[in-house]
Amino acid sequence: MLQPELKPRRDKIRVLMAQQDIDAALIACNVNLIYTYGRIVNGYIYMPLHSPAHLFIKRPNNIKGEHVHPIRKPEQIPSILKEIGLELPNKIMLEADELSFTEYNRLAAIFDNAEVVSGSSIIRTARSTKTRMEIEKFRRGAEKHTKAYEQIPSIYKKGMTDLEFSIEVERIMRLEGVLGIFRTYGREMEIFMGSVLAGDNAMVPSPYDFALGGAGLDPSIPIGASGRPLKEGQSIMVDIGGNFNGYLTDMTRVFSVGKLPDEAYAAHQACIDLQNKIADIAKPGVICEDLYQLAIDFMQEAGFGKYFMGYEQQARFIGHGIGLEINELPVICPRNRQALEQDMVIALEPKIVLPKIGAVGIENSWVVTGDSIEKLTHCKEEIIELKD
Amino acid sequence: MLQPELKPRRDKIRVLMAQQDIDAALIACNVNLIYTYGRIVNGYIYMPLHSPAHLFIKRPNNIKGEHVHPIRKPEQIPSILKEIGLELPNKIMLEADELSFTEYNRLAAIFDNAEVVSGSSIIRTARSTKTRMEIEKFRRGAEKHTKAYEQIPSIYKKGMTDLEFSIEVERIMRLEGVLGIFRTYGREMEIFMGSVLAGDNAMVPSPYDFALGGAGLDPSIPIGASGRPLKEGQSIMVDIGGNFNGYLTDMTRVFSVGKLPDEAYAAHQACIDLQNKIADIAKPGVICEDLYQLAIDFMQEAGFGKYFMGYEQQARFIGHGIGLEINELPVICPRNRQALEQDMVIALEPKIVLPKIGAVGIENSWVVTGDSIEKLTHCKEEIIELKD
Repeated sequence: MLQPELKPRRDKIRVLMAQQDIDAALIACNVNLIYTYGRIVNGYIYMPLHSPAHLFIKRPNNIKGEHVHPIRKPEQIPSILKEIGLELPNKIMLEADELSFTEYNRLAAIFDNAEVVSGSSIIRTARSTKTRMEIEKFRRGAEKHTKAYEQIPSIYKKGMTDLEFSIEVERIMRLEGVLGIFRTYGREMEIFMGSVLAGDNAMVPSPYDFALGGAGLDPSIPIGASGRPLKEGQSIMVDIGGNFNGYLTDMTRVFSVGKLPDEAYAAHQACIDLQNKIADIAKPGVICEDLYQLAIDFMQEAGFGKYFMGYEQQARFIGHGIGLEINELPVICPRNRQALEQDMVIALEPKIVLPKIGAVGIENSWVVTGDSIEKLTHCKEEIIELKD
Repeated sequence: MLQPELKPRRDKIRVLMAQQDIDAALIACNVNLIYTYGRIVNGYIYMPLHSPAHLFIKRPNNIKGEHVHPIRKPEQIPSILKEIGLELPNKIMLEADELSFTEYNRLAAIFDNAEVVSGSSIIRTARSTKTRMEIEKFRRGAEKHTKAYEQIPSIYKKGMTDLEFSIEVERIMRLEGVLGIFRTYGREMEIFMGSVLAGDNAMVPSPYDFALGGAGLDPSIPIGASGRPLKEGQSIMVDIGGNFNGYLTDMTRVFSVGKLPDEAYAAHQACIDLQNKIADIAKPGVICEDLYQLAIDFMQEAGFGKYFMGYEQQARFIGHGIGLEINELPVICPRNRQALEQDMVIALEPKIVLPKIGAVGIENSWVVTGDSIEKLTHCKEEIIELKD
């Protein structure tokens, strides 16, 4: 990736480093290497506050350049820094929330005269507002995501299972260019490509903070499709991630086998109405918690409070930042007094789980503009009846 | 999962704990929860050396039982332990190689009167020999893996790209029951379902310690298929992981578009001959490094040394343990004096990368028996020519 894109990203991190007198960052984790170097390597970006970044690389062996230094192990970094005339840092940051305890300590020991602090919040904060190119990547990804979702009705065959349906959606997404890997922040959430949840399977509580869980096929991955046949009167919620270029677009649409009870259409419409209401008021400066509370009040009023964001086990958010990972900042949840900022990209996902029917609702990806939010994922929003 | 399966697993860990005077383990990471509890939860297994394990669980909210304690946060654990009459540990182990620095410190602080040590090696070692049920899971997975691979020739269409071919293999694997998630040890390797590498794309060096890399589709995931059309005279190496039940079977087979040059068949046969030679001598007590050195010597002798396990960037192993993760112990690599043990399950993967042709070679999953090793993945081993 070209310097005109990487420099502003690195400088967003540097601004926050300067506020804490941190004079260097050592970046090792994949998403942060993509962010600061443009691709994954087995190595480290060493980024001083006041001079250009250097890449210390183990693999692959075909990357060369002025600021690229092949190494076998990170312990070689300080002596190379001295050789190229860079002072060792007084205060360095490492990715404390992502590196293992063992690896963090190993890297910290390399800089044994420096104060070592966590840089995880700084990098997450920097990443929470996107550059023009990042937003452009979202736009292009969202177009492909939409193109894939438009083909979903064509894959339905009477008698198929939720799993077979999911597999055909996954295939369409892959053919449209989805890279596969679905990146999440934190060690817990392991998600294949996303989820397809039909009927009451949406009610099975998840080990994760999800509105909908799904039993999954095996206790080693207890989420998602369960392998049962799709049945008349069930809703099918498709929430497959759109990683077309590293940036994850998030979009959910609902399909039905035959007609659903009236209640389902009412609940679905309530989610769309809530989404539109949020879109009317969201803009830079609006507080995340206020949007969350608005959603809760709206759904109480509409009579769906008990079923909103899950039934029996409810998720405690209605939206979240998206980027290289599916769960970036900000989180639209209780007690989060963070304000929306221009160039944030977020997913809003009001969803309702109705016993005996399944999940309804909507999810789209949005970019926060100067005075509003703009929808990126354009695809029909009503419940689409599947026909063989 | 039933106690008759879990108890022996936990006891394998306890034996190693006792050797280091560790009187409790707190287990938080997904694979180790699957291993010690049988499924993924958001919570912790607290396992004393001399009394039954307890589950402290945040989510899902529908798991109940005698030794199950709902919590909101891990800081509640010590007071619950006291309530149920368990002494707090003097020396506790945490997953230092898997937990983030931040999370490790948070959990360590909960047991502030205890010595806190790393339990990662202990658990990896315990997991490196499998129980009867784990081996049975491998057998069942291997059968499905074979059944899926046998269908591969049927998906080929003239003019398709390596990516389209990969997507159809992925679909077949999913339809045969692959769960999707491909688990690796360590934070670095991010693999979708495995790889399909055609022609010179196999030569592109990887950021990981792989014999074959592949350019991939995007610098955010620089491995695997590249989207180029399959061409006459290319080999196609299919190495898609077999996670059918949590346990990852590993199998590689080679296909060709048209006929390959004679050299390719000779190289492929050399890999099969080497595999069979290793199978003849491998048994409990055989040292990993010795198998590695045998492989290197064999390929030097055969004239393929320069192309063995990669060209220009060579991987430094010829096999590895498999289990809940694709890269378990032991590693069959230089300087590893570890011996094979009965009930280990390993993948052996002699592979050769030939410029202008692509990758050839073989990979199978094997269980170490009392006096030999037994192949689990039975599928024709010769190069299969694809026909439209």
